[in-house]
Amino acid sequence: MSAPEEKDYIETLWCWGRNRTEPYINCVTLRIADIDASLRFYVDGLGMKVFDRIDLPPRNAKLIMLGFDTGSYETGGLIELVRYLDQDDPYTPGTGFVHLSLGVPDVKAAVARLEAIGAEITVPPTEYFGGKGPWMSHLNDPDGYGIALIQTTESGS
Amino acid sequence: MSAPEEKDYIETLWCWGRNRTEPYINCVTLRIADIDASLRFYVDGLGMKVFDRIDLPPRNAKLIMLGFDTGSYETGGLIELVRYLDQDDPYTPGTGFVHLSLGVPDVKAAVARLEAIGAEITVPPTEYFGGKGPWMSHLNDPDGYGIALIQTTESGS
Repeated sequence: MSAPEEKDYIETLWCWGRNRTEPYINCVTLRIADIDASLRFYVDGLGMKVFDRIDLPPRNAKLIMLGFDTGSYETGGLIELVRYLDQDDPYTPGTGFVHLSLGVPDVKAAVARLEAIGAEITVPPTEYFGGKGPWMSHLNDPDGYGIALIQTTESGS
Repeated sequence: MSAPEEKDYIETLWCWGRNRTEPYINCVTLRIADIDASLRFYVDGLGMKVFDRIDLPPRNAKLIMLGFDTGSYETGGLIELVRYLDQDDPYTPGTGFVHLSLGVPDVKAAVARLEAIGAEITVPPTEYFGGKGPWMSHLNDPDGYGIALIQTTESGS
């Protein structure tokens, strides 16, 4: 897909709804250093789509809303990446955040795509607990955030 | 609701599905220091429910799967809290992770509940950008992870 046009933040302030009464997790928000590097990883590498690109001048920031096709503003399952334009030092991931966990149909195929774009694979594809569980793999995104891939089919696609 | 019985991890290894072909974000995983403190915050304070409590002896850890009613293993929208039983030092949240963003029908009511259980409110309820956007508030969970509350009704419930 082609990336959407950048929107002014005012257009998106109510993106999560105006008359929704049940609570939900709408997104995870992470600071990033380089929008292009993150798009390569999440879009080209993981196959996510860009839901919105948002300019936020009051914070001197740009926002990228990302998710798989199964995500939406209405259902959640999105990632919000924030690029503060005056922030040049790398962020520290800390010791508390473990990872975003993603279900994918074929872990080995996903890791092959991610290796091809230079992603850092920290645990190569392996079967959980000696074959008792699904295939999984761990890697880092361009800012060092952990991403876990868990296979959601028994044999890969 | 009453909390579910603790399960052995083997029972839950395939919880995300065995024949699901579309990728999705299934959960965010965070390390925690104190299960009871986290349950007070997420269950008593935020109104989430415990989907599973899982004993993971190979990692000397216990897992808590949490979410709102709108979350599920099939649709995602869950939080996985990990308590490593031999880890006593506090975790550092780092500078990169901003927050988990939650949509709730009434931010002021939610914050009142959270204040009553002693949660640390970092930005009291206010309207985004001088009333152009919904009510929001920011707070920290017991381990210092940021939680954003965004109102998803125009007037509160």
